[in-house]
Amino acid sequence: MIVNAEKSVNPESDLLALREALHQRLDQLLPVVDEQDRVSAAMRAGTLAPGRRIRPLLLLLAAHDLGCDRHHPGLLDFACAIEMIHAASLMLDDIPCMDNALLRRGRPTIHRQFGQHVTILAAVALLSNAFGLVASARDLPTGCRAQAVAELSGAVGLQGLVQGQFQDLSEGHAPRSSEDIARTNDLKTSMLFDAALQMAALAAGASPEVRQKLRCFAQDLGQAFQLLDDLADSHASTGKDANQDEGKSTLVALLGAEAVQQRLRSHLHSADQHVTLACRHGAATRHFMHSWFESQLAAFG
Amino acid sequence: MIVNAEKSVNPESDLLALREALHQRLDQLLPVVDEQDRVSAAMRAGTLAPGRRIRPLLLLLAAHDLGCDRHHPGLLDFACAIEMIHAASLMLDDIPCMDNALLRRGRPTIHRQFGQHVTILAAVALLSNAFGLVASARDLPTGCRAQAVAELSGAVGLQGLVQGQFQDLSEGHAPRSSEDIARTNDLKTSMLFDAALQMAALAAGASPEVRQKLRCFAQDLGQAFQLLDDLADSHASTGKDANQDEGKSTLVALLGAEAVQQRLRSHLHSADQHVTLACRHGAATRHFMHSWFESQLAAFG
Repeated sequence: MIVNAEKSVNPESDLLALREALHQRLDQLLPVVDEQDRVSAAMRAGTLAPGRRIRPLLLLLAAHDLGCDRHHPGLLDFACAIEMIHAASLMLDDIPCMDNALLRRGRPTIHRQFGQHVTILAAVALLSNAFGLVASARDLPTGCRAQAVAELSGAVGLQGLVQGQFQDLSEGHAPRSSEDIARTNDLKTSMLFDAALQMAALAAGASPEVRQKLRCFAQDLGQAFQLLDDLADSHASTGKDANQDEGKSTLVALLGAEAVQQRLRSHLHSADQHVTLACRHGAATRHFMHSWFESQLAAFG
Repeated sequence: MIVNAEKSVNPESDLLALREALHQRLDQLLPVVDEQDRVSAAMRAGTLAPGRRIRPLLLLLAAHDLGCDRHHPGLLDFACAIEMIHAASLMLDDIPCMDNALLRRGRPTIHRQFGQHVTILAAVALLSNAFGLVASARDLPTGCRAQAVAELSGAVGLQGLVQGQFQDLSEGHAPRSSEDIARTNDLKTSMLFDAALQMAALAAGASPEVRQKLRCFAQDLGQAFQLLDDLADSHASTGKDANQDEGKSTLVALLGAEAVQQRLRSHLHSADQHVTLACRHGAATRHFMHSWFESQLAAFG
C-alpha cells in the first residue's frame, strides 16, 4: 500500500492541480513525434481536448480517500489510462456507423477532423496504449498492475462499454423498460467508473469488502451520471450535438424530467452511503461528487 | 521458468494437436452466451474461422524450444490472446473505410456478415479480451503477465499494427522504395510475431540475449512472411480477395517475383541462424518455419 502523506484537501485548487497533472502526463504519454503523423495527432486531439476528466479524477480522489498519496506516479499512470480508454470510446461512438455525431467537447468530432479510418486506428492505439500503461505503471507491484489490466479489460469488453454501445445502437430507438435503460446505462457508464475505483483500491491494497462497496458506489454514481447526461441533452451547452437523444427511449422520455431528477437524487444518496463506508481516510470523492452534481443540476434550474 | 517434460516432437501430429488445443481454448474463451448477441457472434466468427494459427503456434513452439512445456495452460492463454489480436486486426483491416475487402479465409468478411458497427465493436472487445487474458493467464507469475501485456501493447499500438495499417493505407498506392515497403511489412507482421516470441521468452524466463536474438528472428520471419503473402496475392487460392494488391507498390511489383523469392530465402536463412542461436532446447520452431515456407513456395511452382 502506498502511504498517504497529506490528508487535508482544499477542494477547488486541489482539483485544478490534479487536472493539470493529468493533462501534463497525457501530453507526455502522447508526444508529437512527427507533424505528418495523422494517427498520433488524432490520438492527441481525442484525449487532450478540454474534458471534465471525471473518471481519472475519481480514481485519484478515491485512492486518496483509501489512504494513498494522490501524487504517486503509478496512480497518475492508472488515471491517464482510464482517460485514454474513455477518449477512445467517445471517438468510436461518434463515427458515422455508430452515433454519427458532429460535435464533441464543443469541437468537430475526431472523424470529421481526421477521417474515419484514422479515427478507428487512433482509438485502437489509445486502447492498446492504455493497457500497456497500466501494465507498466510506475512504482506499483506487478500483481497490482496485472489485476488492474484485468479490471480494465472487463470494463471495456463484451460485458462493458462494447455491450453498452451495442445495446444503445440496437435498442435505443425501440421502446424499452426503465430496467433495460438502467442496464444499458450501467454498461455504458458504471463499468468504467468501477474499473477506475477498483484500480484505486488495488493500488491502496483495499480489502474485498471495501472493493465491494466501491462497486455499489460505482453503480449508483454511473446511473446518476447517465441521468444527468439525459437531462442535459436538451440543453445546447454540453458541447455535444443538441437533441442527440431525440426519438431515443431515455428515462427522461419515459418518466419525465422531474421524476428523473428524483431518481438521480436517490442514486446520489445511495452512492454517498457506499463511498462513505468504503473510504476511511478522507472524503474528497464524495465532496467532488456532490459539488459536481449540484453545479450541474443548478444549471438546469 | 516452466520446465519442459518432453523434448521429442512428431512435427505433423504435434501441430494438429496444438491447433486443436488452440481452437478448443478459443471456443471456451468466446462462449455463445446468447444467440441474439451479434457482437459475440462476430467475435467468434472472426476468431474461430479456420486459420493457419501461425502466430500462436510460433509462441507455443518457441516456448517449447526455450525449455517450457507447450501444454502449460498459461502459455495456451498467451497464444489465444495473440490469435484474438490478430483476428481483431484482420476484421478492422477489411472494413470499407480501410481495405474494403470482400473475402477472408474463404468466407465473406465479418462486416459483410454482421455490419460495420458490430465488426468494430467486436474487434474492440477482442483486443480488450486479449489484454485481460494475458494479465490473468493461468499459473504464470504476475511479473511475467504484466510484462507480456506491455509487449503486446507495443505490438498493437502506434509503433506496431496500427502504424503498419496506416502506412499501408496512406502510402500503399504511391511509389515507395524497397526500404519503405520493408518498414511497413515490419510493422504489419514482424511486430506481432515478435510479441508472440517475447511472451514465450517471458514464460521461459529467457535471458535478454536470447530475447534479442528472438527479436532478430521475428524481423526476418516477418519480412519473409510478408514477401510470401505478396507472392501469393496473384494466386486465387488464398481465401482472400485475389489481386487485392493490384496497383499497390509491393516488392513484387518493384523487383519482380524471382528477386522477391531470392530475398525471401535470404531472410529465411538469417531467421534460421537467429532462432538456432536463441533456442537450446529444441528445433520445433525452425522445423515449422521451413516446412511451412517450403510447402507454400512449392505451390507457386
